[in-house]
Amino acid sequence: MSDAVPLVNDLFLRALRREPVERTPVWMMRQAGRYMPEYRAIRKGSDFLTMCRTPSVAAEVTMQPVNLIGVDAAIIFSDILVVPEAMGCHLTLDEGVGPQFPTPIRSGSAVDALRTIDPVTDLGYVLEALRLVKRELNGRVPLIGFAGAPWTLASYMVEGKGTKQFAVAKRMLFEQPAVAHALLGKLADAVGHYCVAQVEAGAQAIQLFDSWAGALGPQDFREFALPYLARAAKIARTAGVPVIAFAPGATWALDEIADATQADAVGVDWHITPTAARAKLGNRSVAVQGNLDPCTLYAPIAEIEKRTRAMLNAFGPVGHIANLGHGILPDVSPEHAKAFVRAVQNHEFTASDSADEEQPAAAGVS
Amino acid sequence: MSDAVPLVNDLFLRALRREPVERTPVWMMRQAGRYMPEYRAIRKGSDFLTMCRTPSVAAEVTMQPVNLIGVDAAIIFSDILVVPEAMGCHLTLDEGVGPQFPTPIRSGSAVDALRTIDPVTDLGYVLEALRLVKRELNGRVPLIGFAGAPWTLASYMVEGKGTKQFAVAKRMLFEQPAVAHALLGKLADAVGHYCVAQVEAGAQAIQLFDSWAGALGPQDFREFALPYLARAAKIARTAGVPVIAFAPGATWALDEIADATQADAVGVDWHITPTAARAKLGNRSVAVQGNLDPCTLYAPIAEIEKRTRAMLNAFGPVGHIANLGHGILPDVSPEHAKAFVRAVQNHEFTASDSADEEQPAAAGVS
Repeated sequence: MSDAVPLVNDLFLRALRREPVERTPVWMMRQAGRYMPEYRAIRKGSDFLTMCRTPSVAAEVTMQPVNLIGVDAAIIFSDILVVPEAMGCHLTLDEGVGPQFPTPIRSGSAVDALRTIDPVTDLGYVLEALRLVKRELNGRVPLIGFAGAPWTLASYMVEGKGTKQFAVAKRMLFEQPAVAHALLGKLADAVGHYCVAQVEAGAQAIQLFDSWAGALGPQDFREFALPYLARAAKIARTAGVPVIAFAPGATWALDEIADATQADAVGVDWHITPTAARAKLGNRSVAVQGNLDPCTLYAPIAEIEKRTRAMLNAFGPVGHIANLGHGILPDVSPEHAKAFVRAVQNHEFTASDSADEEQPAAAGVS
Repeated sequence: MSDAVPLVNDLFLRALRREPVERTPVWMMRQAGRYMPEYRAIRKGSDFLTMCRTPSVAAEVTMQPVNLIGVDAAIIFSDILVVPEAMGCHLTLDEGVGPQFPTPIRSGSAVDALRTIDPVTDLGYVLEALRLVKRELNGRVPLIGFAGAPWTLASYMVEGKGTKQFAVAKRMLFEQPAVAHALLGKLADAVGHYCVAQVEAGAQAIQLFDSWAGALGPQDFREFALPYLARAAKIARTAGVPVIAFAPGATWALDEIADATQADAVGVDWHITPTAARAKLGNRSVAVQGNLDPCTLYAPIAEIEKRTRAMLNAFGPVGHIANLGHGILPDVSPEHAKAFVRAVQNHEFTASDSADEEQPAAAGVS
């Protein structure tokens, strides 16, 4: 959809297109989250899923980090599990237990029974929230839509709940690969079309989160995660806005992710140096997003600033969206989050101070 | 100490020295563990820490996988947290909660108060277990001693318990780096001397586990983990037996680990292909140990065999000790564990079937 209101701050979109920018744009994964007292105040009166399902509330918390932290992009407040739920997986969320699917997907017939979703009717509450935010933003910063990638959603649906080992989901990959592929294919299509609907509702970029990519070794990632991430991204790209692919725990595959998804940007987690990430991507036409260790925000502000500057210099001024390398942690001080955002926004690139964090280790100290 | 009884099966030690072997040796991390009914039978009558502290019991469970699974090396049954406990950190273990230090280390004075250990008196029960196992083995296979690396132990001591984010420990690195360095230095010396004592009690190789290496990004790993892993390894090496350094979650640093520790072998976790691991190490004189995804043992036996063969071919016949890429999971079938071990022991290297799992991904499938 064409945007009636021109953007005041389009740094994020220009960086995604690797165009020159006056400064590096910045936002934070989970920026509408528990670290903000204003968020907690709303959360106190509601549960998480109800917040997701109530467009006015989702829109309100989406706006909080834009208004209070000053980030360069808004991301719609929602959850990756709304897609499986729309497909017919009943979703529960008990405080302290986390989201659960009481009837996990364990068989071909369970996969067959999953509904083909119509995002407009089945996930209309997210689309309405996007429209509300878009109106409220009034062009101040771009609005990001998002979805979970097929492997991440599938593993949650098969496990039925959060897990450390992904034993049940991985057992399915080994024992019933055809069932797994059927599930992943259905999810890829649902996710892709949901992303398109988000763009039609006003999203100006899409991020795909393959949050549990790191649960798979290279062989399984290449068979069960990457092709479906790529399939979802391919459908999402038809909507005509930039797509960001983020697969934390699979930094070893950054190049393969860029090639397979043809994404405009790849997310970079914090387990790799910016220099190594750029090297991994070689001369591909792809922007990068990341990658400060979220724990860095526990550090004194001077240290946050120092590490943020080092990251910016190492990634360089072109084709980089500053972000954390994972979601912001709930017990971080908002002042420290602001310090990170300000450090990016105040940074000036100079020739002399670039990449000094990239020295080889003083190994063998003893 | 010289070994009075010559080894019948010294494949493990020869592979560590990168000497030619008739076949690749194999053992499994956590091979004396809950997946074995014989282990569970003993565990039922005792708690984990009591088992560690009772040499006859520790020796008995150490022998179980040698006798029942047929692995090519024994590893002493113990826990990495015995070292902090010996230094004065009171350790508790409640079923379902996991090990805890009720008085975590959070200050310089707490670090100063830690005792300098004498392994012979403070950890004599481990040394006695080693002697018992050595006698019982009677040269059948080599015996491995082990210890946790300083960063891993320090983070546990600072957190006081298991954690996902390591927020408290990482906050200390940022806010009180001098305290962190003091703690890590004390630990490196204690760990190193404990390893030497294990060799004097009969251990024929030492493995250092930096189990939580993956909690640190590159910059922090290089400052707070690697130098102390190297310092402990340097002391351990004075005992004259091979040292294996394993830092799961830090495969990006395999080369730096090899250089800093001068270990005879580096452990390889399952997030990297064997070919990529070998490439990372280049022409360094170092053996590798790993790296089958422990979840592979959930697969049908034919699939376990196929993946094991692919791994063996990819690592090649020289300087490789087959192992899982992480500890064996408690709900794996012993028959599947045996299938893995047998697949290694029956493997024959041929020119034609090498490394066929290393094909580039069929990326972009959609």
